[in-house]
Amino acid sequence: MSQYKAIKLVKRPQPGPVSQDIFEVVELDRPNVENGQLLIKQTHMSLDPAMFGWMSPDRESYIPPVELGSVMRSSGVGEVVASKHPDFSEGDRVMGMMGWQEYALSDGQGINKVQTDAPDEMVLSVFALPGLTATQGLLNVGKPKQGETLVVTGAAGSVGSIVGQMAKADGLTVIGVVGSDEKAEWIVNELGFDGAVNYKTDDIPTKLAELTPNGIDLYFENTGGPIQHAVMGRMNAHGRVVVCGMIADYDKEQPSPGPSWVPIIKKRLSIQGFTMPDHFDQIPSLLQQLTPYVTKGDIKYRAHVLEGLESAIEGLNMFLSGENQGKLLVKL
Amino acid sequence: MSQYKAIKLVKRPQPGPVSQDIFEVVELDRPNVENGQLLIKQTHMSLDPAMFGWMSPDRESYIPPVELGSVMRSSGVGEVVASKHPDFSEGDRVMGMMGWQEYALSDGQGINKVQTDAPDEMVLSVFALPGLTATQGLLNVGKPKQGETLVVTGAAGSVGSIVGQMAKADGLTVIGVVGSDEKAEWIVNELGFDGAVNYKTDDIPTKLAELTPNGIDLYFENTGGPIQHAVMGRMNAHGRVVVCGMIADYDKEQPSPGPSWVPIIKKRLSIQGFTMPDHFDQIPSLLQQLTPYVTKGDIKYRAHVLEGLESAIEGLNMFLSGENQGKLLVKL
Repeated sequence: MSQYKAIKLVKRPQPGPVSQDIFEVVELDRPNVENGQLLIKQTHMSLDPAMFGWMSPDRESYIPPVELGSVMRSSGVGEVVASKHPDFSEGDRVMGMMGWQEYALSDGQGINKVQTDAPDEMVLSVFALPGLTATQGLLNVGKPKQGETLVVTGAAGSVGSIVGQMAKADGLTVIGVVGSDEKAEWIVNELGFDGAVNYKTDDIPTKLAELTPNGIDLYFENTGGPIQHAVMGRMNAHGRVVVCGMIADYDKEQPSPGPSWVPIIKKRLSIQGFTMPDHFDQIPSLLQQLTPYVTKGDIKYRAHVLEGLESAIEGLNMFLSGENQGKLLVKL
Repeated sequence: MSQYKAIKLVKRPQPGPVSQDIFEVVELDRPNVENGQLLIKQTHMSLDPAMFGWMSPDRESYIPPVELGSVMRSSGVGEVVASKHPDFSEGDRVMGMMGWQEYALSDGQGINKVQTDAPDEMVLSVFALPGLTATQGLLNVGKPKQGETLVVTGAAGSVGSIVGQMAKADGLTVIGVVGSDEKAEWIVNELGFDGAVNYKTDDIPTKLAELTPNGIDLYFENTGGPIQHAVMGRMNAHGRVVVCGMIADYDKEQPSPGPSWVPIIKKRLSIQGFTMPDHFDQIPSLLQQLTPYVTKGDIKYRAHVLEGLESAIEGLNMFLSGENQGKLLVKL
């Protein structure tokens, strides 16, 4: 190739669905590979809810926003096509932050060789951000105990589906909150969850009470929304809440109020927020925690694969509508 | 004496100010002291915000409510006037749960000899629930570090005033939230706080921003109310929130919504609720942590002393109006 396509962020998003015109599709010249650099041909890239944070100008976020005029940030899998970097050779299969572009020039920082021969879809759906996030949030923050009851929101999503399956493997009762009957059936019949709440059609408090007769010990929050209030009302004494995502609020001008803090005292609850960038240096140990679940066959996944670089733009809105079925990926 | 006065709880309270008719003042006969028992003449009893929880029928609370027809629960200081208990002698000065009554018959459980010759007011204002609660919440849950900024609500209250003074002694910047200018002046000029927000008259976000130019690392919550939202918006990364009380919601039919959970993720906050009954077995070690602050003169207090048993009933409403100045006590 002499030219390749990339997508730059050129405007900040407004609340609501992402508008096409905040991005610009450009043709870039193939760069020269200097000493210490490598060039990667990206084969699959990952779309993640965290991207809403990366695009936003909120200076208080946990990592700096993508600068206007820069290629949109994303992680992906690809193959090294040229290398003047001592740690990488042509033909290596690598993963890491590559951005919305067909080719990525890198100094190697944040790029790792893929250690498994699993297909791209599984690498990005399990061994990358989703699995690492589930592992850190569930095992290291939530500290689940056999016999406890877990409620996880966004339960058919990339993180939530792994959280629920790990918790089932560890002997918990697992209830998932989803936005469609199809997703409810998938998590119960395919993934082995003990029950599902469809927050769009069920009477949330009633259904949740039916499914959690012994209360809730652990709450893994990926979405926000009214479910928060119902779950907090059913937490057991000394319950733990892991706050991983608030996708329901990412497209709102004003974030919705949270639940009253009264149960936090009455039940002596702990609530802990976390984001993966704080834990990137622990990735080797997180992979060690995660891999046995995968090896034993406890983790199923499904990938929702879009085709072609430009499909990423519309793909973002699937997080808001909930219409994706499985981990959102873009095949290049 | 052959008879003494006691106050029984005969109805559950409704939301709003406490109505006199939920209590009944009775005359009781002096009881016989059996083997293993002691009789205490109470000299001062303590009024505490936790009483609102003790009177309420909410079965999910951390300790069982006071049964209807029973003497109202409270802690106090008194003198042993008769003892057939091996651990106590006539004339011993004791503290513990004695209830709203002039004399208390006890089997010794939860009754401890007072280990200091400080006056009753100081025993109940510092070495009893307020100081123990401040110690557990600030030191063991909040884990303050020198140079950090603490915001404490109910800052002129029995717990808040000790929390702020301990944090000042430990080298933090301490901002207190209060409901009157008189209280603001007291915590700044007498207790040495670095600043005060009067939540009734100040523009809360503006004043808080002025007083916390480096953000907030530690938030000790005694009250609830709109201040929560302003403080959560100014929390620094990895900030901690200690939830000790929600007095602003105790007299409401519907608890007010809490702050959005978005900052919990963005700032990776932790929020921890606690109540003292979980820590009663740690009282000796809590006193060990607390006593050096008192000995070095770091802890000032003021007691608001009501006179006579019946004054306790109206006294409860001072927690809701905020008109008490200092630790509420009843002198018998």
